[in-house]
Amino acid sequence: MEIKEQIALRAAAIEEIIGKYLPKETGYQKTVIEAMNYSVKAGGKRLRPMLMQETYRMFGGKSEVIEPFMAAIEMIHTYSLVHDDLPAMDNDEYRRGRKTTHVVYGEAIGILAGDGLLNLAFETAVGALEIEPENRNVVRALQVLSSKAGIYGMIGGQTVDIETDGTKEVTREQLDFIYRLKTGALIEASMLIGAILAGATRNEQNQISEIANCVGLAFQIQDDILDVTSTGEVLGKPVGSDEKNGKATYVTYEGLEKSAKDVERLSLEAIKKLEALVVKNEFLAELLSYLIHREK
Amino acid sequence: MEIKEQIALRAAAIEEIIGKYLPKETGYQKTVIEAMNYSVKAGGKRLRPMLMQETYRMFGGKSEVIEPFMAAIEMIHTYSLVHDDLPAMDNDEYRRGRKTTHVVYGEAIGILAGDGLLNLAFETAVGALEIEPENRNVVRALQVLSSKAGIYGMIGGQTVDIETDGTKEVTREQLDFIYRLKTGALIEASMLIGAILAGATRNEQNQISEIANCVGLAFQIQDDILDVTSTGEVLGKPVGSDEKNGKATYVTYEGLEKSAKDVERLSLEAIKKLEALVVKNEFLAELLSYLIHREK
Repeated sequence: MEIKEQIALRAAAIEEIIGKYLPKETGYQKTVIEAMNYSVKAGGKRLRPMLMQETYRMFGGKSEVIEPFMAAIEMIHTYSLVHDDLPAMDNDEYRRGRKTTHVVYGEAIGILAGDGLLNLAFETAVGALEIEPENRNVVRALQVLSSKAGIYGMIGGQTVDIETDGTKEVTREQLDFIYRLKTGALIEASMLIGAILAGATRNEQNQISEIANCVGLAFQIQDDILDVTSTGEVLGKPVGSDEKNGKATYVTYEGLEKSAKDVERLSLEAIKKLEALVVKNEFLAELLSYLIHREK
Repeated sequence: MEIKEQIALRAAAIEEIIGKYLPKETGYQKTVIEAMNYSVKAGGKRLRPMLMQETYRMFGGKSEVIEPFMAAIEMIHTYSLVHDDLPAMDNDEYRRGRKTTHVVYGEAIGILAGDGLLNLAFETAVGALEIEPENRNVVRALQVLSSKAGIYGMIGGQTVDIETDGTKEVTREQLDFIYRLKTGALIEASMLIGAILAGATRNEQNQISEIANCVGLAFQIQDDILDVTSTGEVLGKPVGSDEKNGKATYVTYEGLEKSAKDVERLSLEAIKKLEALVVKNEFLAELLSYLIHREK
């Protein structure tokens, strides 16, 4: 089976899992629930839960305990997009070919839907302690989830991204910081939580973190490249937005050719490290390669 | 010692506890950290951690495990205020006599500071599992915290509040829903978490929930009364804002006199239920009475 089909099959299974944790659209407060579900159901690649699940499988994980964490990481990723798109932030009207949440539901509900998703993510992840009450790895997974999503993780990266927006004067150090935290932290959390819950050793966890950091950086650089080289039709959102917003990216610093080479280098490094592990997951290696070379 | 002095002493001790969990203002992302600390340090009554701690003490709790939850509930309360004050929500420029977070740091950082506080709240509360790893009550406390803060708790109430804003046509049922969830849910969480962590029985926990619901409702009605009868100088924020925003409140429905009587009735009911419990906490009874009859 081609990698694209394999990914599609797994993504469909992940949709089912996420769907189990989404709230019912009833009650006086149903608008915010509709907005939350609209945001999550907008699709996307489900990359984070997929990386989590595959890393979990690679280290021999077989329990349902991974499922609430898979849903939680996607909720956190989604809330960050909903808040990113707000007028006070990136002011984006389209994402994945659909109107953004605040455009459909208004700005106030957009803010509350993001808050609701972040809150629900933790509520969902804490539920894993019901499935395996004696599993201390669940506690560590909760710590990784909350720290990588917070001010020393994703929110920290987003802060610097917003603060340096509209200026070409972002330093290379700031840019690295943004990439490492804004995109990298959640990808690292995804793979690391999979490894932790499956009982990987500390050394294996460190290897997974290094692999995830290569993947996260390559993924972000590829995003910058696509913003220059792709079309709005393919991406489902406007291209050239970095240029328009006066935003310095990896491509601004390194040029298109060097950027593409770096994606290649990081990708190979990640796959090499993955293959050096005693345990194997061929699909994961193919997935990394595919994602990094993706066209949207 | 007068009740006011006792409260001040306890509030000072709570400040110390909260302070231990606030992040250092360093790193590229320090603006968001400054904004988070600015919001938390703006003061306030520290009512929620105080209710939590006193309920915990009442049921014989003596461990430090309560402390991360005290900090967490105040962070959640604070993030909700920061997001509430945003231009797309209530658009408030002053709170507690100081400029609101987005006025000082800008709207984008206001959104991120709220996100950061909500995330940090869970990160902090999960830390309680490090203090008492074998204590299953900590898991239940985490569940109460996350559910009462979410769409079936505070965020749910806030959603309906925002949606019915600017209309006198909010029904009595909607109003009750808003009061029960927007203010009530976090107050209930505070007292319930204190009871749970101290090992109170299920029956005692139910009693505490009922008491907390009386307190929460009385507290909110008193808020509405003060918005009509107090001055901006005393409250540290503009009065008459409900009227100005065309907002129906308990006072609109019941009138000032009946509202004041209901505060009295609910307050007495809470105190009577509190005194019916086998365990005692005289300070807590006095605190409830004081808070409900407060002038700001």
